[in-house]
This record gives sequence, structure tokens and C-alpha cells, in this order.
Amino acid sequence: MTTKIDMVEEVLKGERLALSRLLTLVENDTPKGRIALDYLFPYTGKAHVIGITGSPGTGKSSLVNQLAKAFRASGVEKVGVIAVDPSSPFTGGALLGDRVRMRDLSGDPGIFIRSMASRGALGGLSRTTASVSQLLDSAGYPVILIETVGAGQSEIDIARLAHTTIVVEAPGLGDDIQAIKAGILEIADILVVNKCDLPGADQTARALKAMLEMAHPTRPGAIQADAFWMPPVLMACSTGCQGAEEIVETINKHKAFLAQTGEWQRREKERLRNNLETLLRDTLMQQWRESMPQGAFDDMVTRLAEREASPFEAVDKLLGK
Amino acid sequence: MTTKIDMVEEVLKGERLALSRLLTLVENDTPKGRIALDYLFPYTGKAHVIGITGSPGTGKSSLVNQLAKAFRASGVEKVGVIAVDPSSPFTGGALLGDRVRMRDLSGDPGIFIRSMASRGALGGLSRTTASVSQLLDSAGYPVILIETVGAGQSEIDIARLAHTTIVVEAPGLGDDIQAIKAGILEIADILVVNKCDLPGADQTARALKAMLEMAHPTRPGAIQADAFWMPPVLMACSTGCQGAEEIVETINKHKAFLAQTGEWQRREKERLRNNLETLLRDTLMQQWRESMPQGAFDDMVTRLAEREASPFEAVDKLLGK
Repeated sequence: MTTKIDMVEEVLKGERLALSRLLTLVENDTPKGRIALDYLFPYTGKAHVIGITGSPGTGKSSLVNQLAKAFRASGVEKVGVIAVDPSSPFTGGALLGDRVRMRDLSGDPGIFIRSMASRGALGGLSRTTASVSQLLDSAGYPVILIETVGAGQSEIDIARLAHTTIVVEAPGLGDDIQAIKAGILEIADILVVNKCDLPGADQTARALKAMLEMAHPTRPGAIQADAFWMPPVLMACSTGCQGAEEIVETINKHKAFLAQTGEWQRREKERLRNNLETLLRDTLMQQWRESMPQGAFDDMVTRLAEREASPFEAVDKLLGK
Repeated sequence: MTTKIDMVEEVLKGERLALSRLLTLVENDTPKGRIALDYLFPYTGKAHVIGITGSPGTGKSSLVNQLAKAFRASGVEKVGVIAVDPSSPFTGGALLGDRVRMRDLSGDPGIFIRSMASRGALGGLSRTTASVSQLLDSAGYPVILIETVGAGQSEIDIARLAHTTIVVEAPGLGDDIQAIKAGILEIADILVVNKCDLPGADQTARALKAMLEMAHPTRPGAIQADAFWMPPVLMACSTGCQGAEEIVETINKHKAFLAQTGEWQRREKERLRNNLETLLRDTLMQQWRESMPQGAFDDMVTRLAEREASPFEAVDKLLGK
């Protein structure tokens, strides 16, 4: 117990080593980690959580790197980076030795980087990411950047976690522009055309703007509520970027917008709702597992494989109906 | 009841209209749909389920289109296509009017296309996709192609559904080659470098091969078991493709490999295991919701927002611990 309390106090004091250790306990979902999270939860709710998502090849990892530095340069004392993207140099990429950008950032004691595997049980990703984000929040990181590869559910999960979601695109997606649409309309607060030094950047930006305007009247999502935030389309380039400062300004504008419209509180609540639901699902499944005799689940899978029962029958039987 | 049985019998007879109607009931998770699935489940287990995944911009939709035609040309009587990709011309893309490829396929009565929105509750996608796939299986489709956008959880969910998983890449991912790695090592049975008419295709193919060889010794995944399947890297181009036939041959080789090594049965069982687990999770959550007084969940979310309770405390309270 003492070690636990020690660590928690150290985390509140902003000690990085304690934070790293506690993050590991939390990621592994240990009882100690849960107790610590419970203890620290009242200290959360102050951070601006920013999701950065986009397809592989859009160079979002470098952009995240530049944003972290730009936030620091703008006077933010501590910036947390959570990389849940297998393409991130902070995670999968690093395995191939591309640690350059990571070293680059880790030179700054004001930046804390945590990388996470983007695999795991259903909802496992968003759940652990939420906990890690909460921990950084309680440790007094006013800005938390969450990088994730953009597509399908994982993208939407992360968007649910963030106050501000940035969708990164690269020139030359061309006829696959539809690919982006579905995601954008739902989640993007800010669009960034990265690698704007490549040909076709302006065209991509125009296409994105056109899509946004087209979607404007029927645009889903809560931002519509009282005021309206039209997602701006910004340019950036991964090498010696001049775009980062402008993006940081826009992020701060969006934060002000969220505060004015009460959207901040709504998103905060939405985040907690999702966090709670995922936790509930996992706990219910866990309780059920513990309530079952060893192997009951596997036996039923065998019966399914032999077509002796159907999936729905199996569920009814396993739940004793 | 009669209408239900009627439809089921018609589906077994291979009538498309009945199949479409029943698929809608299944997708909307209606009781009728469940009853029908239960009834049809014994007729499943014969189809070769093939997942095709890749980032937006890799042109996988056209590839799926070509593969469907190539399977038909190779003498397969009926091919089912399930598109769960927002970038697919069969789904999101179609909203922007790009129905060309869809029309193209739908001209062939031997090809049945079903498109699905790639959004929904946690696990919702993989669960419904599993049911839709089962229904096509019971309707006597020996080959079922499932197209999904590749990244994170959604990709892995679909890989779990498939006997054979094809990862589609396009030239010019360049330094983001790591992006692919994490996914590939886990899930790819066959790699396709699409748009091979673009510059850099050979380079991409070489990079992929190098990664696979590098990963070979420590390669995770069950294929290792008794024999070993080294994922081949094939070329294709979205326009007037000559690659499709070769890919179909390789898919059939992989099927034979799965059968010889017993991997087919293992994957079949794994699919059913995941199907059952997702179903269980959803049902447990649903039961819990029904057991709770109206608004109990929302009240707890409010308490979280006010930091009066922590998420883990909230779960314990909601579960009456």
C-alpha cells in the first residue's frame, strides 16, 4: 500500500518515473493501478485532450512531434503524448529503429511520451487510452496529444476521448477522397493537409473544403448545438514545418469555442460516459467468466463448431436462460 | 412465423430477394433475424471467407471487384461481397455517386453484394459482419469476400472473421512502411501491392518482402504450427488488372494449406469463439441495462463529471457491489 500511495503522491508532484511506473500498472489493469486511478480521478478534468488521427502515410507522427514542440514553445509547461498508432515511431515504427523523432522529443523534460500497442480486446484500446489520459491529466499535463491511426472504430473511439480532434490528410488521395468523408463529417474539428510541399496539396485542401461545405447544412455531431464551428483546413509539412504554430493557435481557438458553447462540458461528459460503458462491459464479461465453470465457454465453442448449437442458442444456454 | 420460414427456405434455395430481406433483419438485429440465423446456422461452415483490408488510397475496392469477377471466371458459381469500408464504392463512396464499380458487379447474378456502415457500438461491426457472413454461407456462397478499411481494431476484427486475409498496399508509402508492419505480421496471409503501374511499386514489394523475412523467425500467429505459410507478395493494378487471376490461385493455394494443416478448423473455431464472445458481451450489457432503473447510468455519468465518484467506483456501485 505504501508504495502505491507514494507513487500517487509523486505523480501529483509531477515526477516522471513514478508516472511511468503507474502507467504500466494502469495499462496492465492491475488492482494497484485501479486503486491509484480511483485516488487520482478527482484531480482530473483539467487537461485539453487532443486527438490526432489519419491514415498511414500522412506523416501524422512528425506532425504530433511538431505540435508537442509548438505547444511547449507557446509556453505550455508540460505536454503529454500518447501514441496508440502502430505506425508511430513511438511504437511499432520504433521497432524498425526509427527512434529519431522520439529521441528528438524526449530531450525535452517538459514532454512526456507514452506509447501503447494498438491491439487488445474489444474496447480494450479506448479503455486503456482513457485511463492513461486520465493519469496524465491528474499529473498536471494541461495538453495531452493522442495519436492514433485513422480508420473505422478505433478512430471513432479516440475521437470520443478527445476535446479536439485533428484529422491529418496527405496530398494525392485523389479519387479516394470519399475514403475520408465518412470519418471527417463525424469527428474532425480541424483538418490538416500534411506534406503540403508535395504536389496536389492545394487540390486536396480544396476537395476537403468543398466536402465540408457540402456537408455543412446536414452536418451531424453536437457542435451544431448553439454556435457552429466550421472545421478549418490547414496546411503543414512534416519537414521543418511552419504550420505547427498556426495549428496550435487554431486548437486553442477551438478550446475557447468549446468553453463558450458549453460543448466542452458536453464532450467531457461524453468521454466519461464512454469510459464508464466500456468499463461496465468488460467487468460484466469478467464477472460472468468467473461465475462459469472452467471450460464451459470452450465446450460451447466446440458445440458451435460441430453445429450442435447456434450462436444465439449458445448465449442463452451460457446465461442459463 | 410463416413469413420467416418462407424466407429461410427461399434463402436456402438461393433466392436473392429473400436473402436481401433477411440480411436487413439480421443487420438490424431483430428477433426474426435471430430466429432465422438460428435456423440457418447448421447450414453454415462451408464458405471460404476472405478478408481484404488496406488503407484508404490503396484501391482495394477495385481489387475486390476484380477478385469477385476472377472467382466467377474460375468457375465459382456464387460469390458474396460484404463491404464494411466507408471508402468502398459500395458504401460511403456510393453516396458521392461513384456507383460505377458497383453497377459493374451487380450485372452478374452470380455475385451478391452487401454493403454495411462501418460504424456502431463496440464490437457491433464484427458481430453483424459475422452474422451477415453466416447468412451468405448458409445461402450457399462458397466464396465470401469481406472488404474493410485497414487499421487498428476493425482490421483485426475482420481478420478474425476470415480464413484468408489479404492486406492491400499501394506504392509510395515510403518511410511509413512501418505503418503496415504491425498489422501485416499479425494478420496478412497474402500481400498485394496494388496500383503496380505507379512508380515505386517494386520498391514497396521489396520492402514488404524484407519485412516478412525479417519477421519470419519470430512471426506470431498460428500458421507457424506444423507447416509454415510464408505470405506471398503479389502485384496488381486497379485498371485492367492482370493480377486478379494469380491472386485467386494463391487464395486457393492458401485454402488447401489451411485444410492440410488443420488450420482451417482452428480458424473456423476461432471465428466462432469471437462471434460468441461478442454476442455474450452485448447480451450481458443489454441484460444489465434492462435490470437497471431508468436513468441510473446517466446519473452516474453526472456524478463522474462532478468527480463525486471515480469510474471504477461507479462500476462497482452500478453492479451493486
